Amino acid sequence: MVKAYRASILHFLADPDKTPVEDAYEYYEDGVLLVDNGEVVACGEAQAMLAGLQGEYELVAYENALIVPGFIDTHIHYPQTEIIAAYGEQLLEWLETYTFPAEAQFSDPVYARGIAERFLDELLRAGTTTALVFGTVHKASVDSFFEASEERNLRMIAGKVLMDRNAPDYLVDTPESGYQDSKALIEKWHNRGRARYAVTPRFSPTSTPEQLRRAGDLLAEFPGVYMHTHLSENKDEISWVRELFPDCEDYLDTYDQAGLLGRRSVFAHCVHLEDREWQRMSESQSNIAFCPTSNLFLGSGLFHLSRAQENNIRVGLGTDVGGGTSFSMLQTLNEAYKVLQLRGEKLSPFKGFYLATLGSADCLDLADLVGNFESGKEADFVVLDKACTPLMDFRMQQCKDLFEELFVFSMLGDDRAVQATYAAGVRVHQR
Amino acid sequence: MVKAYRASILHFLADPDKTPVEDAYEYYEDGVLLVDNGEVVACGEAQAMLAGLQGEYELVAYENALIVPGFIDTHIHYPQTEIIAAYGEQLLEWLETYTFPAEAQFSDPVYARGIAERFLDELLRAGTTTALVFGTVHKASVDSFFEASEERNLRMIAGKVLMDRNAPDYLVDTPESGYQDSKALIEKWHNRGRARYAVTPRFSPTSTPEQLRRAGDLLAEFPGVYMHTHLSENKDEISWVRELFPDCEDYLDTYDQAGLLGRRSVFAHCVHLEDREWQRMSESQSNIAFCPTSNLFLGSGLFHLSRAQENNIRVGLGTDVGGGTSFSMLQTLNEAYKVLQLRGEKLSPFKGFYLATLGSADCLDLADLVGNFESGKEADFVVLDKACTPLMDFRMQQCKDLFEELFVFSMLGDDRAVQATYAAGVRVHQR
Repeated sequence: MVKAYRASILHFLADPDKTPVEDAYEYYEDGVLLVDNGEVVACGEAQAMLAGLQGEYELVAYENALIVPGFIDTHIHYPQTEIIAAYGEQLLEWLETYTFPAEAQFSDPVYARGIAERFLDELLRAGTTTALVFGTVHKASVDSFFEASEERNLRMIAGKVLMDRNAPDYLVDTPESGYQDSKALIEKWHNRGRARYAVTPRFSPTSTPEQLRRAGDLLAEFPGVYMHTHLSENKDEISWVRELFPDCEDYLDTYDQAGLLGRRSVFAHCVHLEDREWQRMSESQSNIAFCPTSNLFLGSGLFHLSRAQENNIRVGLGTDVGGGTSFSMLQTLNEAYKVLQLRGEKLSPFKGFYLATLGSADCLDLADLVGNFESGKEADFVVLDKACTPLMDFRMQQCKDLFEELFVFSMLGDDRAVQATYAAGVRVHQR
Repeated sequence: MVKAYRASILHFLADPDKTPVEDAYEYYEDGVLLVDNGEVVACGEAQAMLAGLQGEYELVAYENALIVPGFIDTHIHYPQTEIIAAYGEQLLEWLETYTFPAEAQFSDPVYARGIAERFLDELLRAGTTTALVFGTVHKASVDSFFEASEERNLRMIAGKVLMDRNAPDYLVDTPESGYQDSKALIEKWHNRGRARYAVTPRFSPTSTPEQLRRAGDLLAEFPGVYMHTHLSENKDEISWVRELFPDCEDYLDTYDQAGLLGRRSVFAHCVHLEDREWQRMSESQSNIAFCPTSNLFLGSGLFHLSRAQENNIRVGLGTDVGGGTSFSMLQTLNEAYKVLQLRGEKLSPFKGFYLATLGSADCLDLADLVGNFESGKEADFVVLDKACTPLMDFRMQQCKDLFEELFVFSMLGDDRAVQATYAAGVRVHQR
């Protein structure tokens, strides 16, 4: 049966920095989102939408609420759920001290499944319905993740980590085993239901050139598969890459020489890119995951969003849990704003909500499926509660318009603001 | 009747950066805090404490909880509660666009009282029991604040803003009226119950040298009264001060020439101090309020904590609401950590919790009254809940020791972590 969700409704049609802002979004203060069979039928003004409905339908009304497309997280590590908020280190020491020991446990599929469930609970509590997800080096970690995700019918992209050097013995594969395991996972999971696969070298320091080339082979053999890795996050990391790859022009070139750039390649961080790298990212249509809470927490530096835009590079938002400190895309917007303020740039709340929804969908080449409420899109959406805390309630009452309300959501909001989360038309989280 | 609060208990005796860390705090995993007549009697191991009690007592046990001294906020603006999370500006434009219009309403004592109540609700929800508080230029704003604070029996320091230029007509006083109003407020409120007064020039750009001198007269006439202002927050602000005060050596000197430095003088921000200013702050025993969420939100810059310590300057933590984005001292610790990471420095959770309690008490010269659980201190304390969210609960279970638990509180915690807040032995907030 058709369901009609009534509340204020907002979704984006285009990047508000590239279109007159009033054309970039649709907003219905008293709106209805019509959903049938897991897909969006339409959205619009409530009275007109309801008057136009024929036959039976079910009405679900949310008071003092804003419905937006499900949030999309373009970079996150599910095995690091248990080390979020681990103390004191910058990137390389943080990996050694916290990440590698935690990831060792994911050879056990039962353990992995338990963490995957907890991870998905947290994502949905935060209103995130799609994510690009790191597993561990273990094939089982990805099976467990996709099994958990499939049960909830979530649109998720994930992959097994490739890592054949500079890591503990218990966490390395080989170019050949990494290739074979990834291939088996692609054949099993890519485009099964709402799952897609990402070939996932952790980062150049932990893959030999041979392993990176084998990753490139996978992308060539399986068009449509994603590539997901890290790039230029931390200055010590960059120096190390220069030592390890003396024949490459720069960090990005270590991936480029292996054929790892392209429309479905997502590079997390990109905090310290050089001129040639910006240009090559752009030429190759590669994408960036901007991860503000992580960049601040690990002291990596301040991402240069305007530079990415000048180069016409698609940017999505990432939490980067466990290097990031929150699963919430609202808290991520809070810190994205702060990162840009330190650079003397502004992040408007329209741009912020665009990035958290359609912008990140576009970054993941999923904008034909999710990210807004165009007819036929998968019905992933979030109900945001304007009165979720006494302070939020009071502050919202001072707001003159949607712009201010969105900014208050992004500065004061967290998982409490998420009253309900729906995936493919089914409620998968209720606060 | 004596009350015995049973939970894990932590309090600090000294700065963990200046004392062997194991001597800097006392921790009782199964502890009891004894309170009588609004004061701390003692704290220690539960079994020994309870065995030693004679006569009747009431036991209040909190499960999976940590009791710490009430948090202390060394810089906050109560009239800005309604403009927290206002978009897009750095300091000077932010004042013009948001702050001044909001402050205009505080000529009305009924309005002011309403906001004061809401503000105190938010402070207590966040576990903050003492704060150094800006009012507005209106005398009534401070009467209303102290009336609200007195009803709840809170240890609070506040003052009327002095501002006689570079502000809208409806918000300025004169050197003489500012002096007289402040004097009347001091005589009425300073040391009445738990209230203390702070002479409060907003900042040098909005006070003439004459007004600053009259502020200095008040400090000379009323020893023990505080001085509270802003210093060196933003680079445009600093340039403006240089133009306005051509005869002063630097920004700090504008206050120094008026006699405004000293043991009970608190300068918010101090992000861009110069060498001479660091030295003079130290010589004069002046204090700094470090306000990380505000410094990031307004793009002001990164406070240099180690520099303050090298100069033996007392530092407290401030939220700076509404320039700051949260009333929570836990979220303030989260962003303090991030500010220092960007500087390549570390903020240990011991230091963080010290700063939020005894360190800030010392900064406000209140360490004889609040900030820890030494016998005779005022019984202001907070009960922190280790299971306040599913993620916090899970993450706490991974912690090996107190150090890790404190860090998780400071990275993942917010007002939800505050199960109850007590002031002078009375419960003033219950989640």
